[in-house]
Amino acid sequence: MPNPGPSPVVLESDVVVVGAGLSGLTAAREVRRAGREVVVLEADDRVGGRILTEEWAPGVHLELGAQWIGDTHHRMSALAAELGIVVHDQFEEGDTSYELGGRVLRGDAFHRAHGEDVAAVERVLRELDAMAATVDAAAPWAAPQADIWDRITVGQWYDAQGLSPLARELLEICTVGILAVPTVEVSLLGLLFNVVTCGVTADLLSESEGGAQTKRFVGGTAQIPQRLAAELGHRVVLDSPVQEITVAGEAVTVRCRGGLIARGRQVIVALAPTLAGRILYDPPLPAVRDQLTQRMPQASAHKSFLVYDEPFWRDQGLNGQLISEAGPARMTNDSCMADGGPGIILAFLEGESARVEGRWPAERRHDALRAEMARHFGPRAGRPEAIVEGSWADKPWIRGCYNANPGPCGWLHFGSALATPVGPIKWAGTETAVAWSGYMEGAIDAGVRAAGEALESLDGLG
Amino acid sequence: MPNPGPSPVVLESDVVVVGAGLSGLTAAREVRRAGREVVVLEADDRVGGRILTEEWAPGVHLELGAQWIGDTHHRMSALAAELGIVVHDQFEEGDTSYELGGRVLRGDAFHRAHGEDVAAVERVLRELDAMAATVDAAAPWAAPQADIWDRITVGQWYDAQGLSPLARELLEICTVGILAVPTVEVSLLGLLFNVVTCGVTADLLSESEGGAQTKRFVGGTAQIPQRLAAELGHRVVLDSPVQEITVAGEAVTVRCRGGLIARGRQVIVALAPTLAGRILYDPPLPAVRDQLTQRMPQASAHKSFLVYDEPFWRDQGLNGQLISEAGPARMTNDSCMADGGPGIILAFLEGESARVEGRWPAERRHDALRAEMARHFGPRAGRPEAIVEGSWADKPWIRGCYNANPGPCGWLHFGSALATPVGPIKWAGTETAVAWSGYMEGAIDAGVRAAGEALESLDGLG
Repeated sequence: MPNPGPSPVVLESDVVVVGAGLSGLTAAREVRRAGREVVVLEADDRVGGRILTEEWAPGVHLELGAQWIGDTHHRMSALAAELGIVVHDQFEEGDTSYELGGRVLRGDAFHRAHGEDVAAVERVLRELDAMAATVDAAAPWAAPQADIWDRITVGQWYDAQGLSPLARELLEICTVGILAVPTVEVSLLGLLFNVVTCGVTADLLSESEGGAQTKRFVGGTAQIPQRLAAELGHRVVLDSPVQEITVAGEAVTVRCRGGLIARGRQVIVALAPTLAGRILYDPPLPAVRDQLTQRMPQASAHKSFLVYDEPFWRDQGLNGQLISEAGPARMTNDSCMADGGPGIILAFLEGESARVEGRWPAERRHDALRAEMARHFGPRAGRPEAIVEGSWADKPWIRGCYNANPGPCGWLHFGSALATPVGPIKWAGTETAVAWSGYMEGAIDAGVRAAGEALESLDGLG
Repeated sequence: MPNPGPSPVVLESDVVVVGAGLSGLTAAREVRRAGREVVVLEADDRVGGRILTEEWAPGVHLELGAQWIGDTHHRMSALAAELGIVVHDQFEEGDTSYELGGRVLRGDAFHRAHGEDVAAVERVLRELDAMAATVDAAAPWAAPQADIWDRITVGQWYDAQGLSPLARELLEICTVGILAVPTVEVSLLGLLFNVVTCGVTADLLSESEGGAQTKRFVGGTAQIPQRLAAELGHRVVLDSPVQEITVAGEAVTVRCRGGLIARGRQVIVALAPTLAGRILYDPPLPAVRDQLTQRMPQASAHKSFLVYDEPFWRDQGLNGQLISEAGPARMTNDSCMADGGPGIILAFLEGESARVEGRWPAERRHDALRAEMARHFGPRAGRPEAIVEGSWADKPWIRGCYNANPGPCGWLHFGSALATPVGPIKWAGTETAVAWSGYMEGAIDAGVRAAGEALESLDGLG
């Protein structure tokens, strides 16, 4: 007979938080500030979730995960300031390079050649804005036209807008840059939800003033979850994947792989819906909630950083950005440090690119990336010192980025279960946010809301 | 300090099977027949999975789950014969009642009034057959037109076929009867996969000769898994939800909730993909497999049996079937026993109906069902003795029926991971079948195939 194992460790608190991403850490902080005790259980050996900064060389931080904040990300700005983390502007001086319609053109030349196409895309974006204005981010399924808009895909609607092939491709690339899945996988209502939680399409797509990607963090985004975790100290427990949440009377018991148990009276699940659906709940969750978690897949995003001795493209009047129909990267960005250092181009492989070129053997993909950079930024761009990559679908506790969007009928038939508490179980995570869902800003929005719900319930319990 | 708990029970075998549905039990039987030892772990307190027979009164069996077999279900016919279970023909004499275009018409009257619509639907079905003939059930993503067909939804393609509203509605109802989700949720390639694994659309949609629903089991379908389980005896362990599968060298360790451990050298996961995705795998599964399981939601099906003193509709020349645009049931069937007894109408609430009327309070739904039956089968049909219901999304170890279909790009980008083993982990379950996927016949097909893979691997290990 085998020896009895060690007794399980039991952690007691008022609120158990599942997931030490930004949303879970925010929720835990709110709980602590209200004078309640909290335990945060994290599956991974680090905090941060979809935030992951790699220090490639001293002072050179590569954001394998969340990288930017926007001008209207007031919660993130305030949090960074509070934690003493400085922001710097995204570099954006110079021309973007376009590879559309079979040739590479930069800035003005592209706009001169394809002004009509760009104008047509702009018209479609204004139409999206007008439609999004009728959608309530807290209840997209109740929009007057939800019943129509949730039964067609974004791609289907785009196809019906009378765009030229070039304009249609440009619109696809820009939208996949947000959704990180082909536009045929998301319902039109789903895209409109994304738009309205962020403001208007210009905020979502633009890197200029008001946009979603105007500023970065000196020293790396990961400092934010790390400092939040440091404040929480021993209350954050790593390497503890939650497998089971049991509710009995006013007690919640959360069991982790390996035997760790946390007990409380409220639990905040701060995971993407698909991951939240992998936990065993006792009693079982309502059917609508379970079927929702089957229908919000994590998207497909892969980042490749190309590192050069210096940002030589800037001297050529280029901003390091490209938009390409050919790929592998459909978009790139200048991702240099604020204070100089090496030249860094971030190549995005999103949606189909992440699934096709992202699954190629590294050498084949790197060859293709080098060739692409050379097409846009000259031969020097074909000779990076290093290529550093991260694919989120590979990461066992994340399984896809940037966020999750249901397909047709998802919002209509299951959306109401996304953020609705189930007794003492509250739902956080950026997908449940009504402001900037899918972004760090949304992670905070959702964490604060879920903590408020848990605290209110605790007050009710006495 | 708490007392140490009891030592975990460890079961040793060659192959561990996860799930005692028809596919898992079939796989286990094959393993035993090859002289290898097997353990079957079942989460529920019963075997059968999506097969569930309720004995409503002595000799009166209501099939809350899988009910029919078809003429080309040779594996199922052979298995039933072997187990000594007798089949009887589905009752189908008389007229079907149609409620389309705002009125109720039976049989000939409907066909006289809407012959063109029916012919148009038939033309679309022939078109589907022609397209399906180019799809290999073992690799739908490799079909010549896969790249187009997996980027549009079935609903989108149907909308483009120039059908009248009535014909379009008729086609929707018939297709939802197979998919159990709105046709906008499944890609055209996904439907073609369903068609080709079953033969042609006539096989899939018809209850006449060659169709999928021609015969039932005297005494109930559940006898089949029960007898298979009885053969396996103590090797089937109930109430043991699998939470973790660990592969280390040539050993596979499967951990259940509550502490039970099963050890073997191969494991067959005989669950629907979404449920297979809820298990924690160590080492983690490849990204493509994980993202697949995020994209194959279980469909939405709800069955309501209306029980009367006798099948009075037969005397009126009706076959107990209806097709309705109004609902709640979009289709019904005569579900009486072979040897007489009460009159039983089975009302299907599938797809949107399961999600809307299926979530209504029972009394509201029952009132609507009674009214619907009266519209079609006369006032007597409005006064059933009883209504017995089952909704599969509610069942914690099933979470949706009848099966699972990916949305757009699912087959194209993830399909190759559906049945491909990951080392000693083999995948069964009807979704992985190449013959009659989604049916009991497919469950056997997949179970036999997965067992063959596991046995071959064992032979390789020596």
